Amino acid sequence: MIRFNCDYNEGAHEKNLKRLCETNMEQTPGYGEDLYCRQAADTIRAFCQDSAADVHFLVGGTQTNLTVIDASLRSHQGVLAAETGHIEVHETGAIEACGHKVLPLPSENGKISAAQVEEAYQAHITNEAFEHMVQPKMVYISFPTELGTIYTKKELEDLSDICRKNHLYLFIDGARLGYGLAAADNDVTLHDLAVLSDVFYIGGTKQGALFGEAVVITHPDLQQDFRYFIKQKGGMLAKGRLLGLQFQTLFEAAESKADSAHPCQNTSSCPDHFRDTLYMQLALHADKLADKLRDAIHQADYPFLVESRTNQIFPILPDTLLERLREKYSFSYERRIDSKHSAIRFCTSWATKEEAVDKLIKDLKTAAWN
Amino acid sequence: MIRFNCDYNEGAHEKNLKRLCETNMEQTPGYGEDLYCRQAADTIRAFCQDSAADVHFLVGGTQTNLTVIDASLRSHQGVLAAETGHIEVHETGAIEACGHKVLPLPSENGKISAAQVEEAYQAHITNEAFEHMVQPKMVYISFPTELGTIYTKKELEDLSDICRKNHLYLFIDGARLGYGLAAADNDVTLHDLAVLSDVFYIGGTKQGALFGEAVVITHPDLQQDFRYFIKQKGGMLAKGRLLGLQFQTLFEAAESKADSAHPCQNTSSCPDHFRDTLYMQLALHADKLADKLRDAIHQADYPFLVESRTNQIFPILPDTLLERLREKYSFSYERRIDSKHSAIRFCTSWATKEEAVDKLIKDLKTAAWN
Amino acid sequence: MIRFNCDYNEGAHEKNLKRLCETNMEQTPGYGEDLYCRQAADTIRAFCQDSAADVHFLVGGTQTNLTVIDASLRSHQGVLAAETGHIEVHETGAIEACGHKVLPLPSENGKISAAQVEEAYQAHITNEAFEHMVQPKMVYISFPTELGTIYTKKELEDLSDICRKNHLYLFIDGARLGYGLAAADNDVTLHDLAVLSDVFYIGGTKQGALFGEAVVITHPDLQQDFRYFIKQKGGMLAKGRLLGLQFQTLFEAAESKADSAHPCQNTSSCPDHFRDTLYMQLALHADKLADKLRDAIHQADYPFLVESRTNQIFPILPDTLLERLREKYSFSYERRIDSKHSAIRFCTSWATKEEAVDKLIKDLKTAAWN
Amino acid sequence: MIRFNCDYNEGAHEKNLKRLCETNMEQTPGYGEDLYCRQAADTIRAFCQDSAADVHFLVGGTQTNLTVIDASLRSHQGVLAAETGHIEVHETGAIEACGHKVLPLPSENGKISAAQVEEAYQAHITNEAFEHMVQPKMVYISFPTELGTIYTKKELEDLSDICRKNHLYLFIDGARLGYGLAAADNDVTLHDLAVLSDVFYIGGTKQGALFGEAVVITHPDLQQDFRYFIKQKGGMLAKGRLLGLQFQTLFEAAESKADSAHPCQNTSSCPDHFRDTLYMQLALHADKLADKLRDAIHQADYPFLVESRTNQIFPILPDTLLERLREKYSFSYERRIDSKHSAIRFCTSWATKEEAVDKLIKDLKTAAWN
Repeated sequence: MIRFNCDYNEGAHEKNLKRLCETNMEQTPGYGEDLYCRQAADTIRAFCQDSAADVHFLVGGTQTNLTVIDASLRSHQGVLAAETGHIEVHETGAIEACGHKVLPLPSENGKISAAQVEEAYQAHITNEAFEHMVQPKMVYISFPTELGTIYTKKELEDLSDICRKNHLYLFIDGARLGYGLAAADNDVTLHDLAVLSDVFYIGGTKQGALFGEAVVITHPDLQQDFRYFIKQKGGMLAKGRLLGLQFQTLFEAAESKADSAHPCQNTSSCPDHFRDTLYMQLALHADKLADKLRDAIHQADYPFLVESRTNQIFPILPDTLLERLREKYSFSYERRIDSKHSAIRFCTSWATKEEAVDKLIKDLKTAAWN
Repeated sequence: MIRFNCDYNEGAHEKNLKRLCETNMEQTPGYGEDLYCRQAADTIRAFCQDSAADVHFLVGGTQTNLTVIDASLRSHQGVLAAETGHIEVHETGAIEACGHKVLPLPSENGKISAAQVEEAYQAHITNEAFEHMVQPKMVYISFPTELGTIYTKKELEDLSDICRKNHLYLFIDGARLGYGLAAADNDVTLHDLAVLSDVFYIGGTKQGALFGEAVVITHPDLQQDFRYFIKQKGGMLAKGRLLGLQFQTLFEAAESKADSAHPCQNTSSCPDHFRDTLYMQLALHADKLADKLRDAIHQADYPFLVESRTNQIFPILPDTLLERLREKYSFSYERRIDSKHSAIRFCTSWATKEEAVDKLIKDLKTAAWN
Repeated sequence: MIRFNCDYNEGAHEKNLKRLCETNMEQTPGYGEDLYCRQAADTIRAFCQDSAADVHFLVGGTQTNLTVIDASLRSHQGVLAAETGHIEVHETGAIEACGHKVLPLPSENGKISAAQVEEAYQAHITNEAFEHMVQPKMVYISFPTELGTIYTKKELEDLSDICRKNHLYLFIDGARLGYGLAAADNDVTLHDLAVLSDVFYIGGTKQGALFGEAVVITHPDLQQDFRYFIKQKGGMLAKGRLLGLQFQTLFEAAESKADSAHPCQNTSSCPDHFRDTLYMQLALHADKLADKLRDAIHQADYPFLVESRTNQIFPILPDTLLERLREKYSFSYERRIDSKHSAIRFCTSWATKEEAVDKLIKDLKTAAWN
Repeated sequence: MIRFNCDYNEGAHEKNLKRLCETNMEQTPGYGEDLYCRQAADTIRAFCQDSAADVHFLVGGTQTNLTVIDASLRSHQGVLAAETGHIEVHETGAIEACGHKVLPLPSENGKISAAQVEEAYQAHITNEAFEHMVQPKMVYISFPTELGTIYTKKELEDLSDICRKNHLYLFIDGARLGYGLAAADNDVTLHDLAVLSDVFYIGGTKQGALFGEAVVITHPDLQQDFRYFIKQKGGMLAKGRLLGLQFQTLFEAAESKADSAHPCQNTSSCPDHFRDTLYMQLALHADKLADKLRDAIHQADYPFLVESRTNQIFPILPDTLLERLREKYSFSYERRIDSKHSAIRFCTSWATKEEAVDKLIKDLKTAAWN
């Protein structure tokens, strides 16, 4: 069985494990107040080119989403999100359990637009009964989205403008951030995210860490007392250094990469240097393999639920083919398209082997032709 | 200015005020443990023909909805409701503030079907990631709905069957219950509601009381400790007798009614006796006036957003006409239909005067014809 | 049975009922946006001498406490209160159900001191693990307290100073406010409360209204969006005018009073004019009768759990005496003092008849002497 | 700087790291549904001698406490705990943020008694205003407590009896469970805990794992839908296998131990086999070093805040001595005892080196004598 069902089937990049082993018996303060967390935060601030940002390390995505959102909203305020957004669909009501309504917006491809946000905001403030309705105060988007798509820089700028005009916080879920930044069609930088959002996070769990999400908070209102929230929500890891250490490792220059490392000295402000990091090199690896698989499926003339260039692929395949694939591969079932076809999801990841993709491509072809 | 914008513009039926004045200086225990509350509860149990039902009195609808729902659900459970349902749209996220997600179902006319509930339930339990999603555990419907429609007995039976099969609680919001029971096309009795639902309430605020909703709980699981929830949510009125007294009054035989009172002796099991109560006579009055207004609008060939026979009327009228009507009448704006037409809502109530309706009909005609 | 067990055994002062009857069939906007609410708010602002204060009307005390506190705090913040405070003891965890911890402080007489607040605040900010603990952000006091005691102006000033120094909100529960302001030993004015606190409320339920609490918010941060919270917590009365009308009535000059009405013209800034209101005259009546009862118990040499001059009296009486009293009177049991004595509570109120107090005094003497 | 301030200063026992490295590139299902989690759960069930117990793996203690408690209680119910309990003091109101009040009971040594629980329960049900108060429904104790003490089997049996009589759930926080089970004066087995409690957990974070707590649920009511709660509260680790793998490793027989391994074949029912596990051998190591340090402090005639035989030591030392110790050692400051003395906490752990303890003992003597 080869698993393409998600991007967290394996452990961590070997360099992360090596560091954990090397530092294992060091004594450090707990709860993220150790040297490794401080160093990793500094590194992230430098790559974001925002020395005033707060950086915190949490264990997982749902935990991060609920902690950020509850720290940002008063009880009567809600968060606008795509109807496909993780917080709306796949967190067992974690946001509502903190008292806040998710306000879903229709979405075909996992994205929402500035126009939709503006419309929802205007609909609220112009409604006679506005006080009888949840007040939109935050916009949640995922980069890439749950459907693998990414926002263009222009789209993010428009969203950011609308949010700032209307005093809405913009929160970007970056559980798969690297796979978005590394996508062939991406024009957004880490610095752009820091400038355009109020809070976002850099996913480690799906990109080479055992676990871990690095939250970057740029809006001063949201920075205040954030550690209280991490603790209250159960997200403050006793041995916080495990997080700092892994992010520090991921944000170092990768030892091997396709292209030679960038020669300039200014590591903090140079996007090319960021591209040299282990984090980005692992993402490039996954995206490249996804492109390879995607191309093969395109060539076989299968349609896609949605098009993207990140590590998630959503082909629409015959059920008979899926039945045969299931014998050797695991993948996610998305939804029925018609009586004979279903949309599924294949994921590549930092850990995917090119041989596995080649085998899948071969089997797809063989199975399809028989 | 004549108000048709809602059904709570006036105070209470004079008989209620009279009773409050007569008993004003009596000393009674507080918090709903007085004689009037006990008597009113007995009367309601008798009309429901369910001697094991628990009856509690609360002040308003949102308070009742949030108290019932929070008392019924564990943290990971949600409540299925029409996307037009009051709890989804007009309670400032009260249910979410208690930690529970409202799970909206599409609805054209304010109603949801047994098939929709079954589909939502099956979609949950068959989903691979079911534990990552909110578990549906309750179904909330309004009778009449927020769009004035009512469920037939058959529809309620189907909903009840599906709910029991799937261990879902069925909760009926009866903020306008009488207007539904009194509708010309209704075939549902109070007894049916007690049998088919697990908890429902009988609205007083919109039907002749200063305020008050009588919650009838028939499911033993939901009966347990309910008064703790009333207190915790701020709904336990110190002078609970104000509620008992008004419901006791509303459920007495009306002094005057169109038809002569029913002659049979068995007040508890006889639907006709229930029809003789002040509560139902006030509802019949409102529904009759609504029918009159509705007929006039029909005759003028205006379409309706939705058809019903209860006290809420949703015509689609030209904006130019609405502009003229606004000079003399208040009504609710529902939504824009096209560039020149809007859907609005007129409400009649227990307190509406026939002259007011006649005047509106006349003005509608005049304005429309000019 | 004559009830001295609480101060909400009867309905409302007859003038309130008269007004409700007179205005019953008027049509008004709902949800507290009617003329009566506006007028009552203006009147209260004038008596508070604070034209920038927001005034809202809610139905009951627990509802008011939970709404104010949840509107004021972020999730990690708690509210300091006396261990005897209503929010700590008698609200079924309403504050915790909104997500906030009540942080109890020891109290012998229902009061807490500025020094206690300062100590608790300093203990928090100097603790190494402060982020692992609830952050104190609000101070809740009752005036009068649950034990009938009142704060002196000096004590309130000290509390206010400490709160402002430490950015803590000061919230005063005035469910029995009039009985405190009318107490023989009181030196605090309504204006003082508005100046010294950030939010407080004026209780109507226990002082001549059918129900109702008038919340006065002076701190701008707490004013923002407060009506959303009223709605979300189920406290927005459909017929809000019932509240406005009653408070307007209570704050008019009483028709009869012991002393002649104050002759000066400046109703807003003159404490003596406030004393002429029905609200204060009713409170003076209750406090006077409480003093009479208290004096009689003193003369019989019974000790008291705590001394005060408001409408609550906490004598420590022999159980044998209590057994006899119970045949004719109801009162609250506070707690066992020793094997033969218990502390109880007698309440007088706006509705207490002097004959009832005289009868109780006589029976106390007779029963005690036998 | 040598750290004795807590028992989570280092990473994990080397065997845990070795296993993580060995299995790193295996593909497994996520969210705790992998083979390692299943095996670890089976092993724990076997040692508990309860084949019907549910076993779940979470990341940290606060997360576990809030998840278990929120899954167990309805909104009006609270949890009795020692006033020193972790949930009352050091979780930033995590339990209240889930809507539940912690009901603290006085405690000198971190423990509460069956008599205290019975008294609190009776006080609730016999109170006239019981519905106005939080209903006690769960009892939370820590084994060992936050002060290092442990309950005897008899004390646990009494607590269990009282809880079952009164339908209260008994929840045991075992964040330091091994250090309690390994204590020289302990007479409680893992099997006892499974039998006497309704839910308890086995702490890994402080005892040789990078992180991880194994929750054992024996009460069927609490088993239902527990995984929904883990997900909702943000505690469902994507790579759940990290938890299963570590617990599986910790519950294998240790490779080296003081005494020879137990020869009997029945690993599941034999407490001596449990004693042979790495988990218990690490705990015995820590407790032995704690005893050594404790004896030395006793010999120097310093008093203790509380006596125990687990890995936490609470001596009362002169501030002058503490000042000197701080140059070389870190420890927790508990509280001031008098103007010249403070209580502090030293922790040993699975990772503590005997040389470090010897050095501290030597420095204590030297510093004290000068």
